[in-house]
Amino acid sequence: MPSPVTLTLDEAGAFARAALIAANTSAENAESVARALVAAEADGQAGHGLSRVSSYAAQSKSGKVDGHAVPDFSRPAPALLRVDAGLGFAYPAFDLVIDALPGIVAETGIGLAAIRHSHHFGQAGAHCEKLAEKGLVAFVFGNAPKAIAPWGGRKPLFGTNPIAFAAPLSEGRAPLVIDLAVSRVARGRILSAQKAGLPIPEGWALDVEGNPTTDADAGMAGTMIPIGEAKGAALALMVEVMAAALVGASLAFEASSLFTGEGAAPNLGQTVIAIDPGMSSAGAYGERMETLVAAIEAEDGVRLPGSRRLEARARAAREGLTIPAAVHAEIAALAGEDWRDA
Amino acid sequence: MPSPVTLTLDEAGAFARAALIAANTSAENAESVARALVAAEADGQAGHGLSRVSSYAAQSKSGKVDGHAVPDFSRPAPALLRVDAGLGFAYPAFDLVIDALPGIVAETGIGLAAIRHSHHFGQAGAHCEKLAEKGLVAFVFGNAPKAIAPWGGRKPLFGTNPIAFAAPLSEGRAPLVIDLAVSRVARGRILSAQKAGLPIPEGWALDVEGNPTTDADAGMAGTMIPIGEAKGAALALMVEVMAAALVGASLAFEASSLFTGEGAAPNLGQTVIAIDPGMSSAGAYGERMETLVAAIEAEDGVRLPGSRRLEARARAAREGLTIPAAVHAEIAALAGEDWRDA
Repeated sequence: MPSPVTLTLDEAGAFARAALIAANTSAENAESVARALVAAEADGQAGHGLSRVSSYAAQSKSGKVDGHAVPDFSRPAPALLRVDAGLGFAYPAFDLVIDALPGIVAETGIGLAAIRHSHHFGQAGAHCEKLAEKGLVAFVFGNAPKAIAPWGGRKPLFGTNPIAFAAPLSEGRAPLVIDLAVSRVARGRILSAQKAGLPIPEGWALDVEGNPTTDADAGMAGTMIPIGEAKGAALALMVEVMAAALVGASLAFEASSLFTGEGAAPNLGQTVIAIDPGMSSAGAYGERMETLVAAIEAEDGVRLPGSRRLEARARAAREGLTIPAAVHAEIAALAGEDWRDA
Repeated sequence: MPSPVTLTLDEAGAFARAALIAANTSAENAESVARALVAAEADGQAGHGLSRVSSYAAQSKSGKVDGHAVPDFSRPAPALLRVDAGLGFAYPAFDLVIDALPGIVAETGIGLAAIRHSHHFGQAGAHCEKLAEKGLVAFVFGNAPKAIAPWGGRKPLFGTNPIAFAAPLSEGRAPLVIDLAVSRVARGRILSAQKAGLPIPEGWALDVEGNPTTDADAGMAGTMIPIGEAKGAALALMVEVMAAALVGASLAFEASSLFTGEGAAPNLGQTVIAIDPGMSSAGAYGERMETLVAAIEAEDGVRLPGSRRLEARARAAREGLTIPAAVHAEIAALAGEDWRDA
């Protein structure tokens, strides 16, 4: 079996960029997408990392994603930004939001960006985190193709629909980031088991009849079990409202695959909310967060959510990214021999 | 054992109002509080219903809650409302928010109300629902005294911290309301088992050592198990940030009891976010929600979250409220003989 390949973060970025440019994506969009995929890979989120390059490239090549789209926006009310991702990749639209929303929030105290004509938005927490680095408390809601059934039902209607949240901490600390799918496990773990021909533990998925299954094929054909049973299914519905209905985008069960080049654009939606916590708390926020974090970290062995992600990020900065040979080969086939010179 | 007592909704309201007025609460505040408690009781949420009258009265009598507080507000930015509940009951402050926030959202598209110096806010979904009845998508975040540990910890730091959300449906339908505590079960269920001297099922609570327990006393002394394990604990932390840090209010582990008249005011916080979905979706919201709800209801036996609550409400309107004799006696002892004439 060929060995995994290690690249520096810069190399990995240039490699992914070259592959996307070769697949009919503009240089600017390829830069935005590659940056997000490398960041997810560095954060230990391989499912949103470089493994996506080949499927993104297939979609850009076939025109399912417009690799040359330039996101556009309007401001229909003082605290609202409506962003049209132009059926291109989601990341350039998020770049626009992360750039424009802080100015709006400085005026109004809270702001919302509704992104339509969008696509796979990757590591949800990373978008929130960038807003928190600018001093804002932020939520991101986005949907994904169907995988979870309404409680009591057998037909998948909702995506695994993450809830992502970030809040600034004291000077010099990375923001608190909470980013969780409302399914008990990520769908990628069932996909991996399916590819490897392995069974899955009970409690991950239900088959098409709504019965618990340990068969990965049956799980992929059926539905993902939500956290907290009825509660997780309700949270998936909440995210569906926030990501799709509030924006005017595809519902999970209408969206096409984010993996193949065939079919219509998935036309997903995302909503970003950002709040100025200094304004809402009249200056009390910083002390309140310090008190909260100190209480959490006072108990031995207890850490903030996201700590493992920050460790992975630091390790990747030191040691680079080690990616499976198969993923490297997929990207290399697109990027060509001369990508280092591109 | 004395029999339960049945009252019409109007009678129950007058009964609770009289008890609160007798316990040093202003008529206006007593009206607001009684309305909220009767509504929760009617919705089948007895833990936020008339069982609260005697503990509320004890707190108003002792001055732990200022029964005569008049909530006040400022608007530090166009989309922000800062509300001071004056260390009184939470419901009059929510009345103010539900009255004032829609006007703000009509101007700005999204608005946030931060309520400080507040108290037990009862049935969280009911506040969202009132905003959804005015055409808005709404969130309410509030904290509660400590009951959940950070993941990996044994000391409770977070409340059972509900996430509440509501969204308008088509003309003539009650809004979609999602209202869930991030613990697997409500703390009141352990309290009931404790009072009855019964064991609790495994999976509800951990003892002070962090071990699973079926002993109700040990569970009350320990912590509630969150939904989705680490995920629910992260959601409890998220709500803590939204309810306390964003407002400048007590953290769960700082808050005094919501049940006894002793000690300082709990000084809890709540945050309300309301969004105009017609503006954010440029008019697509209504059709998107109809499509989503139709897909959910297309499968036999599948209903929207909150359906049982609406049935309980309709039944209560027809048949009145039947309350335990002990709860009736507690309120009667406060309200006196002549409450029907008050």
